[in-house]
Amino acid sequence: MKIGKLAVLLATLDEEELAPFEKQLEDVEFCLGRAGSMNMQKVISAVETAAKRQQIISEEVYRETHSLYHAILEALEGVTRGQIAIGDMMRTVGLKFAVVRGKPYDRNGEGEWIAVAFYGTIGAPVKGLEHETMGLGINHI
Amino acid sequence: MKIGKLAVLLATLDEEELAPFEKQLEDVEFCLGRAGSMNMQKVISAVETAAKRQQIISEEVYRETHSLYHAILEALEGVTRGQIAIGDMMRTVGLKFAVVRGKPYDRNGEGEWIAVAFYGTIGAPVKGLEHETMGLGINHI
Amino acid sequence: MKIGKLAVLLATLDEEELAPFEKQLEDVEFCLGRAGSMNMQKVISAVETAAKRQQIISEEVYRETHSLYHAILEALEGVTRGQIAIGDMMRTVGLKFAVVRGKPYDRNGEGEWIAVAFYGTIGAPVKGLEHETMGLGINHI
Amino acid sequence: MKIGKLAVLLATLDEEELAPFEKQLEDVEFCLGRAGSMNMQKVISAVETAAKRQQIISEEVYRETHSLYHAILEALEGVTRGQIAIGDMMRTVGLKFAVVRGKPYDRNGEGEWIAVAFYGTIGAPVKGLEHETMGLGINHI
Amino acid sequence: MKIGKLAVLLATLDEEELAPFEKQLEDVEFCLGRAGSMNMQKVISAVETAAKRQQIISEEVYRETHSLYHAILEALEGVTRGQIAIGDMMRTVGLKFAVVRGKPYDRNGEGEWIAVAFYGTIGAPVKGLEHETMGLGINHI
Amino acid sequence: MKIGKLAVLLATLDEEELAPFEKQLEDVEFCLGRAGSMNMQKVISAVETAAKRQQIISEEVYRETHSLYHAILEALEGVTRGQIAIGDMMRTVGLKFAVVRGKPYDRNGEGEWIAVAFYGTIGAPVKGLEHETMGLGINHI
Ligand SMILES: [Mg+2]
Ligand SMILES: [Mg+2]
Ligand SMILES: [Mg+2]
Ligand SMILES: [Mg+2]
Ligand SMILES: [Mg+2]
Ligand SMILES: [Mg+2]
Repeated sequence: MKIGKLAVLLATLDEEELAPFEKQLEDVEFCLGRAGSMNMQKVISAVETAAKRQQIISEEVYRETHSLYHAILEALEGVTRGQIAIGDMMRTVGLKFAVVRGKPYDRNGEGEWIAVAFYGTIGAPVKGLEHETMGLGINHI
Repeated sequence: MKIGKLAVLLATLDEEELAPFEKQLEDVEFCLGRAGSMNMQKVISAVETAAKRQQIISEEVYRETHSLYHAILEALEGVTRGQIAIGDMMRTVGLKFAVVRGKPYDRNGEGEWIAVAFYGTIGAPVKGLEHETMGLGINHI
Repeated sequence: MKIGKLAVLLATLDEEELAPFEKQLEDVEFCLGRAGSMNMQKVISAVETAAKRQQIISEEVYRETHSLYHAILEALEGVTRGQIAIGDMMRTVGLKFAVVRGKPYDRNGEGEWIAVAFYGTIGAPVKGLEHETMGLGINHI
Repeated sequence: MKIGKLAVLLATLDEEELAPFEKQLEDVEFCLGRAGSMNMQKVISAVETAAKRQQIISEEVYRETHSLYHAILEALEGVTRGQIAIGDMMRTVGLKFAVVRGKPYDRNGEGEWIAVAFYGTIGAPVKGLEHETMGLGINHI
Repeated sequence: MKIGKLAVLLATLDEEELAPFEKQLEDVEFCLGRAGSMNMQKVISAVETAAKRQQIISEEVYRETHSLYHAILEALEGVTRGQIAIGDMMRTVGLKFAVVRGKPYDRNGEGEWIAVAFYGTIGAPVKGLEHETMGLGINHI
Repeated sequence: MKIGKLAVLLATLDEEELAPFEKQLEDVEFCLGRAGSMNMQKVISAVETAAKRQQIISEEVYRETHSLYHAILEALEGVTRGQIAIGDMMRTVGLKFAVVRGKPYDRNGEGEWIAVAFYGTIGAPVKGLEHETMGLGINHI
């Protein structure tokens, strides 16, 4: 079961398009959300809050927050393509995100991993002056 | 018609999973390929060669090569998450890629754009010591 | 006709020094401006506004804004030398900029390209505590 | 006397175009050279060797090498626009460079500074598949 | 006498632990301070202010400020590990810093160098949700 | 017990200087090593090999390799200060490294974390043309 692929599909597809993947989604925990902002802090915060509220990660355990945080940052590298301080660059993002938690390896001891995917648009803060963007981050949890 | 989404699906899904999207694919030109290497030069080269051979871009016109090159680099930022010199970092990538060319905007004058997506694994050059990775780059052409 | 060289000269030289290059400037469209700020957003905005007002690029067509935006970002990499989030780093820039649009290639089909050059100072927000900086970005349009 | 502006002009202009600036060049020490390579190491090495051979910096004193090295790296950030590992990215550069050493500040105690400028082309290792690039680095020495 | 090592120890150890290194500290000038912020500007400013107030560098001479500034930036690369725009990333730092000025080389002409070290924590702005971080920057002055 | 501080001290101090910290070292697992190279791959490989041979991490479990790998990369950001492709930049490093594994948090569930520290010199491949450098990376394991 590939948590990264599932996260990408969850962030990219609408409900109808997701139907063929429903069975694979039964093996993982996941949550969805949206974040639209010129400010990367707000995007990070939206993902962390969603993942905690929907109990994908435990609010009590720092190592889970740490794992999620680095997975978010890695996914944002894809979204911003090396310009992670993008909020300062006059760009607005309109993103759908997915967080998926599961066991992608068969070997004993590999345990749980987390995937964060973003898909949406990035561009000037004017409708139409934007193009698609996406990113995926993976971490052990 | 979203060229980025189509590129992501082409790079991520197998043939059977792609069936529901066949109709959308009729409106664009695209090519697929694979690249497995510790060396980003070879990955870039594999995409450029495939896109030229399958006539997604013209070999004769530098501006098309320039547009594709920057789209590849942006997609590789997602794949390597800020460490684009990844070949020097002991990582091996095994990637499927898709290049999609189409007209994503309705407005007159927006013309053609190009999307490059990668999906696969990145990790130590040992099977199993790797996790998923992906990237998407978009440019006007 | 080298649009990058002309952009660099326009940003760097004063009127008198530019005189010998007047003839070459007849073959291109260009605009000039100034931006002084601790905030890269304002620098980007100043260039975009000048280029649109002086009709170097069309306000109606996103692909022209997209081309200019990436040329600006590339030029700012030179200005900030890898620290593009420079506004957050207590630095102030005082920059003259030039945007040049023209046809640098003889081959048919290469069409128009755009060059953005910055030249000025970067340093602490105190006069004299600063040194020269410059940057050049080039893109197909 | 602006050492950065002089370095930029030395790297960008041909002999005839430089004539009006001859007087300003009397106040500084400078050297010129060329470097064409897919490999940033060779570019750095070409500049260091030229600057030492033409006695712009002392071969004996590490602090001068250190100052020049960081000025070169800063200039290469402009040349490669954030992709300093460019040799790994299938790009070839054909660059003219200038190193200028002088006293740009009137205040006592500011002493000598060094400027490194590059100007040339970057692109695929095929003639014509390339565009202009430049960079400027400044350091105290 | 290694100014980098001394800066690291000054930033990392408490008074008692520093006792064995007292003798080595006699050969250098140094100052200590603390900076806690989500904002890198404030961290840079805290170090610059401390170094000037305690006369490790001269407030009058730009080249000393320039040298210190680049040493701080290099040290912050270690603290933020490539995400220097960290203040925008919802992270808070709680840092102890040390600035050391001395003559690390025996050779004549190498003169004075400066070292900046940070040690502390980085993490979410919630106590306990953080881990250690450090960084070291060195420059000729 | 601070694993990052211990890693820094292990990498920086000689045996005699380490004596006062012996007791704290009893609570963690650690290993030491040296790596001297112009090539970051070899540095990464040296740390991975040492940590596996001395059983700081398990060779069988990918998640431990993944955790160590990212901790090494974060530490190398400090060593190379944003130029992680440093091997391509004509620099040679001579580094001592330490890997420390322990439980830095009191809370239940935080489990084990890993710290990687480097300390040594970076510079031209000529003795004496180099200065100190260090880096620290921390990860949950
Ligand atoms: Mg990873
Ligand atoms: Mg874009
Ligand atoms: Mg280009
Ligand atoms: Mg500077
Ligand atoms: Mg240095
Ligand atoms: Mg961390």
